[in-house]
Amino acid sequence: MQAEIITIGDEILIGQIVDTNSAYIGQQLNKIGVSVYQITSIQDDKQHILQALKAAEKNADIVIITGGLGPTKDDITKHTLTEYFEDTLVQNDEVLKHVEDLFAKYISTPISNLNRMQALVPSKCEVLMNEYGTAPGMWLEKNQTVFVSLPGVPYEMKQLISNKVLPKIQQKFKRPHILHRTILTYGLGESAIAERIEHWETNLPEDIKLAYLPSLGKVRLRLSTKGFDVNVIEDNIQNQLKILMPFIEDIFVSFEDDFDSLEQVVAKELVNQNKTIAFAESCTGGKITEMFTRNSGASQYLKGSIMCYATQSKIDLLEVSVETINRFSVVSEPVAKEMAEQTRKKFKSDIAVSTTGNAGPTKGDSNVEVGTVCVAIATETGTETYTFHMGNMREKVINKTANKVLELLQKDFLKN
Amino acid sequence: MQAEIITIGDEILIGQIVDTNSAYIGQQLNKIGVSVYQITSIQDDKQHILQALKAAEKNADIVIITGGLGPTKDDITKHTLTEYFEDTLVQNDEVLKHVEDLFAKYISTPISNLNRMQALVPSKCEVLMNEYGTAPGMWLEKNQTVFVSLPGVPYEMKQLISNKVLPKIQQKFKRPHILHRTILTYGLGESAIAERIEHWETNLPEDIKLAYLPSLGKVRLRLSTKGFDVNVIEDNIQNQLKILMPFIEDIFVSFEDDFDSLEQVVAKELVNQNKTIAFAESCTGGKITEMFTRNSGASQYLKGSIMCYATQSKIDLLEVSVETINRFSVVSEPVAKEMAEQTRKKFKSDIAVSTTGNAGPTKGDSNVEVGTVCVAIATETGTETYTFHMGNMREKVINKTANKVLELLQKDFLKN
Repeated sequence: MQAEIITIGDEILIGQIVDTNSAYIGQQLNKIGVSVYQITSIQDDKQHILQALKAAEKNADIVIITGGLGPTKDDITKHTLTEYFEDTLVQNDEVLKHVEDLFAKYISTPISNLNRMQALVPSKCEVLMNEYGTAPGMWLEKNQTVFVSLPGVPYEMKQLISNKVLPKIQQKFKRPHILHRTILTYGLGESAIAERIEHWETNLPEDIKLAYLPSLGKVRLRLSTKGFDVNVIEDNIQNQLKILMPFIEDIFVSFEDDFDSLEQVVAKELVNQNKTIAFAESCTGGKITEMFTRNSGASQYLKGSIMCYATQSKIDLLEVSVETINRFSVVSEPVAKEMAEQTRKKFKSDIAVSTTGNAGPTKGDSNVEVGTVCVAIATETGTETYTFHMGNMREKVINKTANKVLELLQKDFLKN
Repeated sequence: MQAEIITIGDEILIGQIVDTNSAYIGQQLNKIGVSVYQITSIQDDKQHILQALKAAEKNADIVIITGGLGPTKDDITKHTLTEYFEDTLVQNDEVLKHVEDLFAKYISTPISNLNRMQALVPSKCEVLMNEYGTAPGMWLEKNQTVFVSLPGVPYEMKQLISNKVLPKIQQKFKRPHILHRTILTYGLGESAIAERIEHWETNLPEDIKLAYLPSLGKVRLRLSTKGFDVNVIEDNIQNQLKILMPFIEDIFVSFEDDFDSLEQVVAKELVNQNKTIAFAESCTGGKITEMFTRNSGASQYLKGSIMCYATQSKIDLLEVSVETINRFSVVSEPVAKEMAEQTRKKFKSDIAVSTTGNAGPTKGDSNVEVGTVCVAIATETGTETYTFHMGNMREKVINKTANKVLELLQKDFLKN
């Protein structure tokens, strides 16, 4: 059971946008036992689209296409699909009514013929109604392959995938279960881990695949397998984990719940332990806070944050003492400590975390080397402080610091 | 002059990570006149990689491959490339020394044979030294096509692209100039714009392409062309813009400088006008601040932010009056107004912006409908307040609010 994802749009190829749709679709298909064989991004070009459809038909049982369904001339996916299926466009009355309703309710400009033309669909297609937009999804079948065309707007695509496409795939195809088990470790590089577990890895059964996913200080190990009997494949993975665990006990952090990110693991622990948190972010510039708030439910544990970018704001808002700053510099453990303790007090949180550092590329108000970051974590029992050297690239310094904070919280402050 | 990008790694296809490398590479290639024809993401599977290389060779002058260069068994790109080139692996002493140096300086675990094997490269390749990691880049040529293999770690890949790959491409190939001109508009949907400019669009010369890029309330129009004489293509675009502009005068916001994002446009204006800004973010949870701080130079104009997620933190940190909250609810223009004014005072900034709303999926401390967002912008001349209905999906509410704030700043507070 294999799928190919085709994303269409010049803006992807010139790098004007990042294609996030594919990752979402890949995740969702995996959950119902469909493996993604290939993701292909191509321009809004008829010949190229036709060629990609033909190539995909050879390898895939399902081809999911996103993008190119807008009402304007540069969007040609629908016409090209119609040509590929040797079909003609016909008006779908339900879609037309929906488009007219959307305009009447939400859109201030009057509806035009271009908008009404969104209701034209290939006669052979089954329409997947798009509640949140004017371009309907389309389900088409050719020989043994299903083609699904969806709008490229992420929230419209997501709704169609979960409410329409997945249920239809589940109904139509017999699919295996795909099981991933991801182990988060830190403290060792991937090659050091590989040497430790070499014997185990060499003896892994053929149907279990191991992947190493290194990322800024942590390494995730992912075991993957698939099969039709969910109990059998779960047992197989469990048996392998039993052999593996003794080798990695000292570097094991947690199992990652499917695709839970580390901030989701931390969030769950905070809720479980009924603890609240607050942040004072300087060099990380709001990144850590944003990682938590992008998931719903943050109000259960997150009191808030102060993003004190300018040195003066550390004094004005966090009442860090000028003397401490002058004596130790603004990037120092004593400043981080005061920031965390003041934040804990001001937000009345159980835990408060501060970051102060030089993200670069140029030095800020402190003379410390670019990449130096101080972190403090304050709790009712006291405050721990840390200094790290995070390299010399802004993006890396910010992201690595955010990851490090999450790891410290997970390992030293929230571990059961 | 065409390129294909191939990204290798199971984690991309199962959606465990979003492929951001391709967008970066696409942007960089475009800037030096190389068009990306296709982006292909495939699994760590030998047959599939070989097949993708063969297909790419047919269409592309340059094939950029990322991923699969780690020291562990699941990474097979290097071996597969060697097979594709009917080559053998040989040790590169410079790489070996570099790997040993990296371990000696930065890595606490001892170097292993697996790490040393990173210095094995195909004999036919030119090594591109990777300053930031152990896997070297590799430049190989076959028939008329260049193959470049790069590590998948984003900051390692980025350094190799800008310091090694682009200069070599510029040296080897005669390339046209590619010119994009992107116009940011808002106030009209894409189809309404298309109707207005239909006559102009129909008469566009063949070598100028128009794209509509709608996104949460704004529509960008992108004109693209290419040619070997940069003056000629610039004139061609300018002539078309002269005809176009009168049709869109009322909805025109700005030209987007190449791929500058709206926050970069706002940041530049703040610096030009020598103004400072601060934020109080509730429902946007740090998103707006993070958008600014991810780019360097934010300390020139950004004083800081308060992320007052919990209602109590609005009272404790921003001194919003309990009476105002009780009377109007925490999601209301009067609360947004107090938040912005207090923020402006506390951070001593020229401009302060606040957001308060229900991002969903469930209602928070206010009974207003999910998706309702109040925004206030305080300046020395007073405070403007706004209420928006941003739909019912968390991700959409947060991102749409952030975009709206940037638009308001750009259009009403920073326009020259």
